Amino acid sequence: MTDQTAYVPPKIWKWDKESGGRFAQINRPIAGPTHDKILPVGQHPLQLYSLGTPNGVKVTIMLEELLAAGHSGAEYDAWLINISDGDQFSSGFVDINPNSKIPALVDHSVGEPLRVFESGSIMIYLAEKFGAFLPTETRGRTETLSWLMWQMGSAPFLGGGFGHFYAYAPIKIEYAINRYAMEAKRQLDVLNRNLADREYIAGADYSIADMAIWPWYGLTVKGLAYESGEFLQVQEYEHVNRWADQLALRPAVRRGRMVNRVQGDPASQLHERHDASDFDTKTQDKLADQN
Amino acid sequence: MTDQTAYVPPKIWKWDKESGGRFAQINRPIAGPTHDKILPVGQHPLQLYSLGTPNGVKVTIMLEELLAAGHSGAEYDAWLINISDGDQFSSGFVDINPNSKIPALVDHSVGEPLRVFESGSIMIYLAEKFGAFLPTETRGRTETLSWLMWQMGSAPFLGGGFGHFYAYAPIKIEYAINRYAMEAKRQLDVLNRNLADREYIAGADYSIADMAIWPWYGLTVKGLAYESGEFLQVQEYEHVNRWADQLALRPAVRRGRMVNRVQGDPASQLHERHDASDFDTKTQDKLADQN
Repeated sequence: MTDQTAYVPPKIWKWDKESGGRFAQINRPIAGPTHDKILPVGQHPLQLYSLGTPNGVKVTIMLEELLAAGHSGAEYDAWLINISDGDQFSSGFVDINPNSKIPALVDHSVGEPLRVFESGSIMIYLAEKFGAFLPTETRGRTETLSWLMWQMGSAPFLGGGFGHFYAYAPIKIEYAINRYAMEAKRQLDVLNRNLADREYIAGADYSIADMAIWPWYGLTVKGLAYESGEFLQVQEYEHVNRWADQLALRPAVRRGRMVNRVQGDPASQLHERHDASDFDTKTQDKLADQN
Repeated sequence: MTDQTAYVPPKIWKWDKESGGRFAQINRPIAGPTHDKILPVGQHPLQLYSLGTPNGVKVTIMLEELLAAGHSGAEYDAWLINISDGDQFSSGFVDINPNSKIPALVDHSVGEPLRVFESGSIMIYLAEKFGAFLPTETRGRTETLSWLMWQMGSAPFLGGGFGHFYAYAPIKIEYAINRYAMEAKRQLDVLNRNLADREYIAGADYSIADMAIWPWYGLTVKGLAYESGEFLQVQEYEHVNRWADQLALRPAVRRGRMVNRVQGDPASQLHERHDASDFDTKTQDKLADQN
């Protein structure tokens, strides 16, 4: 470990497979599959291949909300893609998401199976397929999509930036932690000012913007991400806290958080979801206590 | 400048206004306006407030493509938001984008002025308003939106990650440069594999996915971003190079790149755009030479 101030990058970057910390085994400078494997396919029209990280949870909340609202066509199988094991590099997964990131969805109800990748794209796809949680009039739809896009472009600074350098990187780098802590706090303040005047992110109605933002910023503001609650002084963001608590009480949000979850209280983990009754064996009240 | 390996973060993060390098003056841990200022409004239905960075160029390419395709309703005024001067923190700008980032668009043709923020949201808004560059059938539309979302979630690693630590940060941090160089190369390889089989990003048709990805990855692969061509060995990505060259030849792409541009050859800079004839005084052929 050398003094970082003395570092001069080489002319041509080389892949050092030993660097990278906790994610060294799963970060690569090349795309494509590492092994052949066919993805399993269940009984339902919608097949989700995911993991209970914030990007995965967005989609399982949406699916559970759709089912709760009576859209029975949203029944789904949720398969576990364990990124620590490299499942995202199987040939089957790369076929449905060439970017090798969870979540990815396949819709078998539209003829030839249709792939949908990137969580933000899946949110729009499901909202339009079922006509739910995305206003159809121009003004509300536009505001909702602006906030959805805000989440897509902002969370890489919260997760890949702040979370990585504060919690996961093998060394604590002052400059990087400062850079991303400042941005994480700015983003929380953007939300806080917005939620001072509104019940939900895009206005009076609960939407895909809320579902996309909650797993990242709702959990962060409750001190449940990166053990950073005190560091970021998350209690300052009172309106985000109010909104985060409100969403956490929704049964569909609680269920969505359990799906493909592989950490925390075992009672909160539903590694795969194939039927609504799969939740019955789990203690949902424990999840409520965590929020 | 201390040895980074010895750094222990404090319990509570504090804002050090001196840190942050080149962007220290414009990065803040709080949102909201810093000063009162009303935004100018021109003659056209669409008012764009932007800067010629990759996120800004996406939108000006789209507007120029719409006009080239005969959608006269896409006439626009493009106003310069100089982020180095803090224009994004004016009360007028914060009203149309609470996130204080360019680009932001206001549509005056739909009754009460309608704000659209986040470049990805603006791309969808314009595509749907004019029925162009976004397929209407489900399969093509879904693939296009997946790639558009890929760009939104990936570019923060290329720009805010790789570009920042390789080119802009006040110190060269080996770990951070390695982390983001690896990811930048992976992302270029994702595109390269996709473009091996397709003329355009989402298939046979030119779409908003191409327009969103080109200003980031098209310029990077041509060695025009962060002086990183040799470091990233961008010539390896032959299909991305082919596609980048192809788009660079489009007159609308050349014009879009000039709008709100404040660096490079003065002949390539059109600080504000209010009329199609504004381009006439500029030497567009020089832009072609740069690609």
